[in-house]
Amino acid sequence: MGYGIIEINGSHTRMIEMDILKLNTKLDAYEKLQKIHQKVHQLIVLHKPDHFAIEAPFFGKNVQSMLKLGRAQGVAIAAAMQQSIPVFEYSPKKVKQSITGNGNADKIQVMKMLQHLLKFDEMPAYMDATDALAVAVCHHFQSRTILPAGKQKDWKSFITLHPERIKL
Amino acid sequence: MGYGIIEINGSHTRMIEMDILKLNTKLDAYEKLQKIHQKVHQLIVLHKPDHFAIEAPFFGKNVQSMLKLGRAQGVAIAAAMQQSIPVFEYSPKKVKQSITGNGNADKIQVMKMLQHLLKFDEMPAYMDATDALAVAVCHHFQSRTILPAGKQKDWKSFITLHPERIKL
Repeated sequence: MGYGIIEINGSHTRMIEMDILKLNTKLDAYEKLQKIHQKVHQLIVLHKPDHFAIEAPFFGKNVQSMLKLGRAQGVAIAAAMQQSIPVFEYSPKKVKQSITGNGNADKIQVMKMLQHLLKFDEMPAYMDATDALAVAVCHHFQSRTILPAGKQKDWKSFITLHPERIKL
Repeated sequence: MGYGIIEINGSHTRMIEMDILKLNTKLDAYEKLQKIHQKVHQLIVLHKPDHFAIEAPFFGKNVQSMLKLGRAQGVAIAAAMQQSIPVFEYSPKKVKQSITGNGNADKIQVMKMLQHLLKFDEMPAYMDATDALAVAVCHHFQSRTILPAGKQKDWKSFITLHPERIKL
């Protein structure tokens, strides 16, 4: 499981942390789910994010791996919901489109764009971490332009959620 | 989502509650997950169960419904894990086998056996509730005879977890 945390301050976007959670292959399925849940909970307590975004999976996988992925996402989503953090979801294509302008961009193109956007040089050790960071940036770009369904019905609530967008 | 709660007191097994959580079809996917998470959390806080058992799904479904099911199970599992309750899982076949002696028993046979075992007469309004109750009874039968993998490595911890099995 990769994760990435970004901070938005006006027009400035900064990478706070990105990494992966390594799961010991000796753990059973439930111990792995517990590690994922604990890690997401810890990250939320530490960084107090306003939003939580995940990648919608490809549907090319088989049903068994889909169930496993669903459960893993479920325990992560639950950790966000426990803290009343709204959850968002983007397809891999949408993420690539949003960051590079090309829904079929490769991972290297996405990473280079992230380095440029977030002004970091280091080469991430794991592509899953870059993927997660890309979802975070995609969500930031999307939430600047569209209102999440059912969350913001009027300008007042939009402004409350996006004080940085008020120009005085 | 169906759920069933049973109480074991020595050789006596009692049904505490069984029902389903009705999810308003107008809710979006995340609101539904939140309802499931909240409901399981509330049930756990109310009844303080020692164990949490779920039904392993059939793999005949398509990948999209498998992801949805996985997420739903994931948020429910997370609610159990938050309270440090061990999670167990049984296939539908195992549940039927354990309760009726026949892995291919139909739902009516399973329900009649549950009524007999738990001494209740009322006809459950929802089959999902009966299914959930069946998983609980199956787990009780299984945990009398086998040790959950990785949970109990010695007699001391087994006895701590199963004080009712000490015969003086």
